[in-house]
Amino acid sequence: MQVMVDFCVVPLGVGLSLSKYVAECERVLKAAGLTPHLHAFGTSVEGEWDEVMGAIRRCHEELHRLGAPRIHTTMRLGTRTDREQTLADKVESVKAKLKEPPQD
Amino acid sequence: MQVMVDFCVVPLGVGLSLSKYVAECERVLKAAGLTPHLHAFGTSVEGEWDEVMGAIRRCHEELHRLGAPRIHTTMRLGTRTDREQTLADKVESVKAKLKEPPQD
Amino acid sequence: MQVMVDFCVVPLGVGLSLSKYVAECERVLKAAGLTPHLHAFGTSVEGEWDEVMGAIRRCHEELHRLGAPRIHTTMRLGTRTDREQTLADKVESVKAKLKEPPQD
Amino acid sequence: MQVMVDFCVVPLGVGLSLSKYVAECERVLKAAGLTPHLHAFGTSVEGEWDEVMGAIRRCHEELHRLGAPRIHTTMRLGTRTDREQTLADKVESVKAKLKEPPQD
Repeated sequence: MQVMVDFCVVPLGVGLSLSKYVAECERVLKAAGLTPHLHAFGTSVEGEWDEVMGAIRRCHEELHRLGAPRIHTTMRLGTRTDREQTLADKVESVKAKLKEPPQD
Repeated sequence: MQVMVDFCVVPLGVGLSLSKYVAECERVLKAAGLTPHLHAFGTSVEGEWDEVMGAIRRCHEELHRLGAPRIHTTMRLGTRTDREQTLADKVESVKAKLKEPPQD
Repeated sequence: MQVMVDFCVVPLGVGLSLSKYVAECERVLKAAGLTPHLHAFGTSVEGEWDEVMGAIRRCHEELHRLGAPRIHTTMRLGTRTDREQTLADKVESVKAKLKEPPQD
Repeated sequence: MQVMVDFCVVPLGVGLSLSKYVAECERVLKAAGLTPHLHAFGTSVEGEWDEVMGAIRRCHEELHRLGAPRIHTTMRLGTRTDREQTLADKVESVKAKLKEPPQD
């Protein structure tokens, strides 16, 4: 089953600057063959459920290895059977609607 | 790696009453040998990462099978290496603090 | 507009034990006249949008005052116009479905 | 208090295509004087707490007016007192780290 996931990793006990840990996650995802889409509050990825969840598990393992004793992560995820859709499709779809006149 | 997960499943395209789908997820989790803790905005479970994520994948598969063409799920999850902690510990810990005088 | 909110506050830069901060939020919510429902991964509250969001803002202000330099919070929230529903209704509705035979 | 919020609006009871509702939210945010940053799984905004939360409330009100009987929204939000930070800073900070060699 294909899944689209947007997740935000918050390591605890490593100070206030978290960007280097987010960067390590990007590396883990790429090493897993995924294409992470970084934004200000998280990272979106898509792929087979087990592949994506396995890669996010490895993000946790890597951040623990780098010294984070506790990690709090949030995810939004979507699956659908009505049609195929990619992360890029989702953004394009909203942008297309923004070119139309507002609803009323 | 042990993980604690709180998740909230929102099936789309099946009307406004979602409780029967949440109930099916409870059944899937129990069938997987997990102990779901239901609350008003989701369900908490704990266990090995792959076991828990596999069970949540089966929730999605089951809701699709029951007719939901699209599912939007959110998760909060935590892992830690400093000590063992259960979902019950987390609640007890806050309740103990509520019996103490407020901080200042 | 009535809203139901489930939120999870994660203060950063104050060590690994967060329960005392969660307990302070409970106190802030009660002082605001709300009825918090604590669970292992957050707290649910309901009320008028501005009242609830104002109380959660005061949780942030209070935790900053108590020494947390950074706070990461996640929320799930729901509004509906089709009927009135409370947090207690949501749990009861799922429990009622669990007493029925599974769907097929 | 300044806040950065990333939110994802899921209207229920309006079919499977949600992009037009997300587009309406973009319009509401801009009309409120905010600068929304759209991504595949949500929209990020920043500003004064009450201003941002008021604008998101108006998103809900507008989607209800357009026919959505129920709306499920999730938010990630951050406040900090140690330094000023913008949404753009957050992304730049991770990108800078990605140019450095991996941690070990």
